Amino acid sequence: MTGLITMDDLTNEEILDILDDAERLLPVAKGELYLPLLQGRIMGNLFFEPSTRTRMSFETAMKRLGGGVVNLGDVKTSSVVKGETLYDTIQMVDGYTDIIAMRHPRQGAAQYAQDAARVPILNGGDGAGNHPTQTMLDLFTIRQAHGKLDGLKVVLAGDLRYGRTVHSLSHALTRFGCELIFASPGLLRMPAEIVSDLQGHGANVTETEDLYGSINDADVVYMTRIQKERFADEDEYARCAGAYKLHAKHLADVKEDMIIMHPLPRVDEIHPSVDSTRHARYFEQAFNGVVARMALLCRLLGVAVPADISAAGGAL
Amino acid sequence: MTGLITMDDLTNEEILDILDDAERLLPVAKGELYLPLLQGRIMGNLFFEPSTRTRMSFETAMKRLGGGVVNLGDVKTSSVVKGETLYDTIQMVDGYTDIIAMRHPRQGAAQYAQDAARVPILNGGDGAGNHPTQTMLDLFTIRQAHGKLDGLKVVLAGDLRYGRTVHSLSHALTRFGCELIFASPGLLRMPAEIVSDLQGHGANVTETEDLYGSINDADVVYMTRIQKERFADEDEYARCAGAYKLHAKHLADVKEDMIIMHPLPRVDEIHPSVDSTRHARYFEQAFNGVVARMALLCRLLGVAVPADISAAGGAL
Amino acid sequence: MTGLITMDDLTNEEILDILDDAERLLPVAKGELYLPLLQGRIMGNLFFEPSTRTRMSFETAMKRLGGGVVNLGDVKTSSVVKGETLYDTIQMVDGYTDIIAMRHPRQGAAQYAQDAARVPILNGGDGAGNHPTQTMLDLFTIRQAHGKLDGLKVVLAGDLRYGRTVHSLSHALTRFGCELIFASPGLLRMPAEIVSDLQGHGANVTETEDLYGSINDADVVYMTRIQKERFADEDEYARCAGAYKLHAKHLADVKEDMIIMHPLPRVDEIHPSVDSTRHARYFEQAFNGVVARMALLCRLLGVAVPADISAAGGAL
Repeated sequence: MTGLITMDDLTNEEILDILDDAERLLPVAKGELYLPLLQGRIMGNLFFEPSTRTRMSFETAMKRLGGGVVNLGDVKTSSVVKGETLYDTIQMVDGYTDIIAMRHPRQGAAQYAQDAARVPILNGGDGAGNHPTQTMLDLFTIRQAHGKLDGLKVVLAGDLRYGRTVHSLSHALTRFGCELIFASPGLLRMPAEIVSDLQGHGANVTETEDLYGSINDADVVYMTRIQKERFADEDEYARCAGAYKLHAKHLADVKEDMIIMHPLPRVDEIHPSVDSTRHARYFEQAFNGVVARMALLCRLLGVAVPADISAAGGAL
Repeated sequence: MTGLITMDDLTNEEILDILDDAERLLPVAKGELYLPLLQGRIMGNLFFEPSTRTRMSFETAMKRLGGGVVNLGDVKTSSVVKGETLYDTIQMVDGYTDIIAMRHPRQGAAQYAQDAARVPILNGGDGAGNHPTQTMLDLFTIRQAHGKLDGLKVVLAGDLRYGRTVHSLSHALTRFGCELIFASPGLLRMPAEIVSDLQGHGANVTETEDLYGSINDADVVYMTRIQKERFADEDEYARCAGAYKLHAKHLADVKEDMIIMHPLPRVDEIHPSVDSTRHARYFEQAFNGVVARMALLCRLLGVAVPADISAAGGAL
Repeated sequence: MTGLITMDDLTNEEILDILDDAERLLPVAKGELYLPLLQGRIMGNLFFEPSTRTRMSFETAMKRLGGGVVNLGDVKTSSVVKGETLYDTIQMVDGYTDIIAMRHPRQGAAQYAQDAARVPILNGGDGAGNHPTQTMLDLFTIRQAHGKLDGLKVVLAGDLRYGRTVHSLSHALTRFGCELIFASPGLLRMPAEIVSDLQGHGANVTETEDLYGSINDADVVYMTRIQKERFADEDEYARCAGAYKLHAKHLADVKEDMIIMHPLPRVDEIHPSVDSTRHARYFEQAFNGVVARMALLCRLLGVAVPADISAAGGAL
């Protein structure tokens, strides 16, 4: 069976179907309804590098649907340190589980695992490569807010050079005809080959260093963390990062239904004053990780999400 | 919804109600009866410092009742090290779960978390602050042994200065009219402000350095660990700690139904010779952590514990 | 209740009964059938040293059968480091669970734990001592391939001196009348006292340094890892280990139904070219850990495995 390694594994129609499933599953994700669609199924959690949010939301998704989870656990004490290859580790977990959620520091590791496994692999991030479940929850969040994906004006801001999340999302938004504004310090610009690839797919892309000047006619502002380690010295960092810190005072003239997103954890990019504005959507976005992953788990395990979910589940 | 941060969150009547629930849940905690009252519910385990007993008994309580658990995992590899604030971590887990069990090294952290969360927080210990679920299992253990809480004579012994557990328990026992004897080395006396606060609430308190001389008319002897680190040098430690080591030979003249408790882990405070006496109740006390936490989980999640539990559950 | 500490705890008849149960449970282990035989039961996972494969397969076994698992977690942060004795740790977990799966670096620890506990202990390896659940899955794998255990010719190869796994398996195979060929470097020979003990039980044993010369009339070749640390210098290691590396090219003249096993993780003992041959059985062997442990869990918890499993379970 095939897993989800990159967003290219899904057609636009499939993406929208999965988002529909996710929306129907909201009451289950919120704990209002008990619907053990995945009872008797086991997911293996193979996190070769830590990721609190992704791992916990995968686990929650599986458990909300009645499924079980087994964790590889700390890589530093696992069989991996005894010299076991990724191929052999995958063979083992493949035998124990029905589906594998995996994060790995090396680009391409998820595809390699899928080639070795009988069960579907859900790529939870492979180095500088892909992170499609993040993209799915981002798309879900945007569609919930705006009722659609196509034709929106989306500002992606911060570290666009190293950010796997914004690369994947940019490609997906291009497929749905969004207009993209890339706002970043020069040092952290979106790589030129990605920009031209997006344009080759018909994207309308603008690049700027001026975040605050670009948010007033945006439908979505997607912030990311600027990491100190990327800069040669602290002064350079302070100067650049300072221009990518969103504060409630910057939001006076934005569109009423503009939403602010962030893959989290944030450090200083979004000031807590933003949290209580109508625009803040990053905590809801994190919660949407559960519902998006529930829909993906059902899809890859071949379990249909009932059309009338209230009738199918039991109230809690 | 409100959680349990301190014992002050509960009236005496509520405490007794919860202890009644806990008693009814005993066959479920023992694995004699299957009663999935919390099926479909998810508890988040947020242990910012390790605590084997508290964490495992929370997990067991949830799972015995059919609920699921997601763990934050090792703080050293979690998003916390990326600089995420407690506020943001709570926002995330809040979205994934129906209730959060939390331990944190900083006093006040549990209340801070409750202010940030929609779901109830069960305080599993916040630094020098509170540890109400421990107090509930202690009260349950005492009531199981003596059939009541009020009017008992309770010796609390060992490290009374730094022991969060004995502070909370002393307050609770005062509310039920127990007589308190504090037996400790001078260096580790119960803080004067706590003693006077207890007396202000009507407590009958005696302080002594003589443990062995105070146990013969006690109904409960509650031992705690004396930590070497508290003392300036090893000699001082050896001299003091030596006077707070209970051995079976000390029990010749105690009351027949006197019980010996300890929050565990013990080191040398209770000699193994005590384990086989009729007085030893510390392992049962540890087990009672499950049943007390089951009752609290049900209460905070708004799930009623059936009056006739055998009729409601399935035999195992 | 009694657990499983060593293979001597089981008669030959009981072993075969459990293998029958394991075979019936295959569709549940594969996730084709949902049969929550252990719903409401809790297993404690006490791994005092890490073991990815054993721990994960125990967890999977329990969860496939609808049971719950609580983990002691990382020993380095558990109550064990506060000086808690194994006796006290067992008393605690004993109160939380219905059965305990345990691995410990010290020989005899599992029996010690069983003496302290009310619930059954499943020994998942105790130092140089026993590892009976590994032996059960090895026997299951052999019987699945050959339809029987008795009268087979089994080559055990590699590190026979320190290998707990091959010691246990040799004893078990002797009970079923197998012929044993021990192939190892001189330094890593099967200890003389084990050889004479096996012979005292009627075993037909041959010792050799020549692996490749002994596999052609074998029914089973059981490889193990040769650890560099066992040798005085790297040259000696390279010379010895080089003669115990199975490659597809060595298999030209072996029996058609000969199977190659390995407890995993492997390093260089079996070349990947072997993986795609009809003889490779090590990954299936790892999977069999789930089904063997399922059968043992049911047995020790007193839960009968239904004769007609398809009728008893629900299709997935």
